[in-house]
Amino acid sequence: MPEENLREIKVMANLLGANDVQAEVNRNHFKQKKCLAVNLIGSPGAGKTSLLEKTLTGLGTEFGTAVIEGDMFTSRDAERIAALNIPVLQINTGSACHLDSKMVNKILPAFAWDTLDVMIIENVGNLVCPADFDLGEDFKAVVLSIAEGDDKPEKYPVIFRNAKVAVLNKIDLEPFTEVDLAKMKAQITAIHPEIKIFEVSCRTGQGLAEWTAWLAGEIRAVKETG
Amino acid sequence: MPEENLREIKVMANLLGANDVQAEVNRNHFKQKKCLAVNLIGSPGAGKTSLLEKTLTGLGTEFGTAVIEGDMFTSRDAERIAALNIPVLQINTGSACHLDSKMVNKILPAFAWDTLDVMIIENVGNLVCPADFDLGEDFKAVVLSIAEGDDKPEKYPVIFRNAKVAVLNKIDLEPFTEVDLAKMKAQITAIHPEIKIFEVSCRTGQGLAEWTAWLAGEIRAVKETG
Repeated sequence: MPEENLREIKVMANLLGANDVQAEVNRNHFKQKKCLAVNLIGSPGAGKTSLLEKTLTGLGTEFGTAVIEGDMFTSRDAERIAALNIPVLQINTGSACHLDSKMVNKILPAFAWDTLDVMIIENVGNLVCPADFDLGEDFKAVVLSIAEGDDKPEKYPVIFRNAKVAVLNKIDLEPFTEVDLAKMKAQITAIHPEIKIFEVSCRTGQGLAEWTAWLAGEIRAVKETG
Repeated sequence: MPEENLREIKVMANLLGANDVQAEVNRNHFKQKKCLAVNLIGSPGAGKTSLLEKTLTGLGTEFGTAVIEGDMFTSRDAERIAALNIPVLQINTGSACHLDSKMVNKILPAFAWDTLDVMIIENVGNLVCPADFDLGEDFKAVVLSIAEGDDKPEKYPVIFRNAKVAVLNKIDLEPFTEVDLAKMKAQITAIHPEIKIFEVSCRTGQGLAEWTAWLAGEIRAVKETG
């Protein structure tokens, strides 16, 4: 392997190493506060923010909820969440294609942690890079629009391997595409047999109750520990 | 700015610098061979490979065409192009989220350049990282599925600023989504007033003739130079 490639790999390993150390600090913070932390990952337009809006509304008043929004530019997603009267902070990454644990750590002091049971961190729209960066979350959730095509899990396997749950969104578009949902799900399960899969449409509401009920169970499990 | 952030920025600048040097080598190669080189960029599922299939078929036999396929894993896209009897090579990037100019340079000797008028390089599915890496192409073309939503250009402006042409794909899905096409186009034009925009559906064929005719003009312009 050429020397310059070795250098790139070494730099990447160093960056990931430093990120993991900071991620553990974040993880301990979430654990102490008995707050479930979810790292929401998907391509641009997979429907992450729409899912977040529906999920937060669906969770109702049982839990204290808050959101961190990651985007390269704009604060549009944060504005959409703020419109629901939910505490939200925007991180603009500029040229960076993913959130890292230091960015998240810096804004943690701005939240009222004693009131929170779940923190959802919406990552930069990117199915690739965020998959490798631990933010200290309890688990990663991947959102995939079925309109992206049924070959995507095999082509971008890392995030499906690293996520605890996959939400297949925009299933209302199924009749208008050539996507084979059974094939898509079989690919995901082949990559990660234990992954939980939900099929939803944020537009029609289909499947959202099941997803929200599952997430509520995860929040309660963390809230009631220790 | 903390020292470690400065270090990351320096490393990134070095990597980009080395990439640019190699990109110029590639660019000279394409120029000598009078072959137009296009760097095709878009999210997973934007429809890059489908557009490529339709475009290559639409170009017919006037030109010598070839393809480089970039994917983290699998050679599915290359297999789809090979089925059209078009010379194609696959680059698997593994963990890398974009092609770089060295990866491209390495496989250039494998093509029969004297027969080629256009080389289309399909990048890894990612709207973010590939935008920053010059491969030595004549221009970047961005493919955006309208199902990704009309706020995407403002949220991921770099690729729209760096691309010469934007292809809005899957316009047959417009009636089944809330997307505002006029708003999407206005955002793109605000970021890059000179960009050329095409609206197509690879599924129904709508708009493909206009796009292919424009591309043929670009190929002829390079072929007939010097």
